[in-house]
Parts: sequence; structure tokens; C-alpha cells
Amino acid sequence: MTNNLKAVVLLSGGLDSAAVLAIAQREGFTVHAMSFRYGQRHEYELRMASAIGVKNRCAKHVFVELDLRQFGGSALTSDIAVPVDRSVDQMSSGIPITYVPARNTVFLSYALAYAESIDCRDIFIGVNALDHSGYPDCRPEYINAFEHMANLATKSGVEGGTHRIRIHTPVITMTKTEIIRQGLSLGVDFSVTSSCYNASEAGACGRCDACLIRLDGFKEIGVRDPILYKSREELA
Amino acid sequence: MTNNLKAVVLLSGGLDSAAVLAIAQREGFTVHAMSFRYGQRHEYELRMASAIGVKNRCAKHVFVELDLRQFGGSALTSDIAVPVDRSVDQMSSGIPITYVPARNTVFLSYALAYAESIDCRDIFIGVNALDHSGYPDCRPEYINAFEHMANLATKSGVEGGTHRIRIHTPVITMTKTEIIRQGLSLGVDFSVTSSCYNASEAGACGRCDACLIRLDGFKEIGVRDPILYKSREELA
Repeated sequence: MTNNLKAVVLLSGGLDSAAVLAIAQREGFTVHAMSFRYGQRHEYELRMASAIGVKNRCAKHVFVELDLRQFGGSALTSDIAVPVDRSVDQMSSGIPITYVPARNTVFLSYALAYAESIDCRDIFIGVNALDHSGYPDCRPEYINAFEHMANLATKSGVEGGTHRIRIHTPVITMTKTEIIRQGLSLGVDFSVTSSCYNASEAGACGRCDACLIRLDGFKEIGVRDPILYKSREELA
Repeated sequence: MTNNLKAVVLLSGGLDSAAVLAIAQREGFTVHAMSFRYGQRHEYELRMASAIGVKNRCAKHVFVELDLRQFGGSALTSDIAVPVDRSVDQMSSGIPITYVPARNTVFLSYALAYAESIDCRDIFIGVNALDHSGYPDCRPEYINAFEHMANLATKSGVEGGTHRIRIHTPVITMTKTEIIRQGLSLGVDFSVTSSCYNASEAGACGRCDACLIRLDGFKEIGVRDPILYKSREELA
């Protein structure tokens, strides 16, 4: 299937965006991937993003340097400790300390700038409203508002035309299990993805929220997660 | 007058944002200025932004490095020639080639991230819908859409409260003459501003759209523009 259209796909190196990339390609889009180096703890995740881009033959992959650290305020960009061994109930109360101020807004703005410069009006992002229920910028109403703004911000908004800018969020209401199942059916190689907040060559920690959600997702469909985990003994 | 509140003010080094800074201070805000280095032709403008920030005693001034050049597509960031000696009628037809894809969206997204990280909910930007009638991201409907999105994107959107995020655009419907008059009444030193698309130490060109609009603005109120212009002879 092909629609001869370009799409900008935000690729974090995580499981969700890897599935989203495969979904965009299934819909016939030629993918221009975009990833961000934003002072996060884990360069490892970006190396996975790069590998996913190559594996899936993206037409182009742009890496953007951001420095959100100068604004401080999140466990993903500064030295705050990431919580471990929490239950799903504990995870879902309030805004996580891993929340980065306005991060998805900055990411989507860059994607919009990139899309407009290559005459592309389709942007894919792997936000998920279930796993990240505490993140304001993962909710459908936020995405709708961004899409509305984007159509006023750009040439297409002024010049009109039938092909409006669309922010595609194909996994926004899926459970982790559904995302994994969907990804596997599209041939996604989840061994080159990373979800852990403390990921490195030595393996994922297996204890942070992201690891626990991911492990649960694979467990539920009875498939072994192909990435490396540090053993419980090593962690003790 | 003071309201004990912080505001993030986007400072380009131009005339409009210098006036906006003074307006924000008159309203009692403690100003955290933000400027962008985005591969534009004119470093000179940023030096003016820095000087304005110092002159007006901003509490802080953050300079953000962007690289919009990798997306190409604008006379302000690439090697396309800037038009000169155009009439106002010629200026106002269509989207100017000086339009940078999604620029204000990227700028405002950074401002939003910065504001949220310092617990601030007021952002000022010197967009103007008259001078830049061809820029989609200078229109009031665009700003309203951004503000709506911003309130869904951030903690304040989730946590509620009476103090919503506001995008202030005090000069959006003013003519250049009105902006200059307002600025002068607030003591703005326009000698440390720059509007020219080709500005340098040697002076403004006096021929690009921005120079012509600026010169007209000062002329209309009978005040001499305090910045340096290259003489017409030098330009010939």
C-alpha cells in the first residue's frame, strides 16, 4: 500500500514510537524520522532510535539538539532520582516527577517546522494516554488542541486546501499489550528499543515504572521481551 | 505598580519586542527574557536583544540555541536574497519569503517550557498582525489557539486553578507608529534595537521591508529613528 505522502515520525527509541513508525509505513507513508537529544540521562535510547530508523529504512532521520536542562525540573533531565518498584496504583497518582515541562509541545513544534519545510502535513507521535495518565501532554484533548493550532500556524492554514495538517496518535488509547501485539504483527524488532529510565549497555533496570509497564505488557501476551535486563541479583 | 508575578518575554532585539518588554514591566511583571539564536543572518539583532535586557534590568535572560537551518526554506535562515525597495502593497501580498516554518510555534513552545519550569504563567510576545499580515503565526486566531493548547499541555492545565497560562500580545493590532509612540512614552531606548534583515555594525540597509516600515513609523510621528543607517550613496 502506498499513498505517496511523506510523514514526520517522532522516534524516541522506545517501544511505542517503534510501533508507530511501523503503523505509519503500513499506511503508505514515506517516513522522515525525527529524534531529540535533550539532556536526557539515556543516550542509549537515542542509539536505539537510530537503529530503528535504519532497520525500517526511513527516508531520512533528523537528530535535533535541544537543551531543556537550562530550565531544570525533571527526573529525566536532571539529577532527581527515578522511583522504582512502584505498583501501577502508585504510578497513576498525580503528575510524575519524570514529567518534562512542555516537552511534547517542543517536540511537536519542531516536527511541525520540519514537516512544513519538506511540504509534509502528517506527523506521527507515540503518545499514550493510559501509561502516562499523569502527563498533561499525552491526552487526546491536548493533541487535538495542538493540531488545531498547527493548522493556524502554518502556510497550509493560510492557503487552505483539502490536506490539513494532522497529528496522528495511533497508539494513544492502546494498552501496552495492544501496542506490543500490533507492533509484532507489523514485524517490529523490539530488541532495538529501550524503555528504561536508567537504560545502558548493561541492560534495563527492570524496576522503574517504564520497565514494569513494559514487562507486564509482554507477560500478558506470553512473549519474552527480547531486550536485556540486569538480573535481580545484580540490582540487590 | 507591581503584581509580584514573573513573565517570560520573548526578546528578538527588534523594535516591537523592546516595546513589549516595557509594557510587561509597566504591568508589574518581573521579566525573564528569552532570545533565540536560530541561524539567522543577523547576530547583530541578538546583541541588541542582550543590550535591551541589560538596560531594562531583566531578572534573567536566557539565550536558546536552535538550528532551524537543517529544515531550510527561509530567507532569514538561508541564502535566499531578501527583497528591497518594495512598496507596502507589494509587501502585503502572500506569505513573505522571510517566513520561517513554524518559527513562532517553536519560540512559544520554548517560552512555555521555560515558564512552566519557573512557575510562571504569563508569556509576552511582540507579534504584529498588521506589519506581518502574510505571516500565519502572527494572527490573533493563531495566538488564541496556542494559548488554548498551552493550557492543556502543562501542569496548570491538569491541576486547574484560577491563574491560567496567558500569551500576551500587547502590540498585535498596533501600527508601527503606535508601537513607537507607546515605547517612547515608556522610556524605551530604540537606539539599541534592530529591524533590518541585513543589519550589521555598519548600519541598517534602509531598503528591506523591515527598514521601510520602521522608517515610515518614525516619520509619521516626526521623531528621528536613533539607529544608524547606511547612506543611500554607500548602497548604490
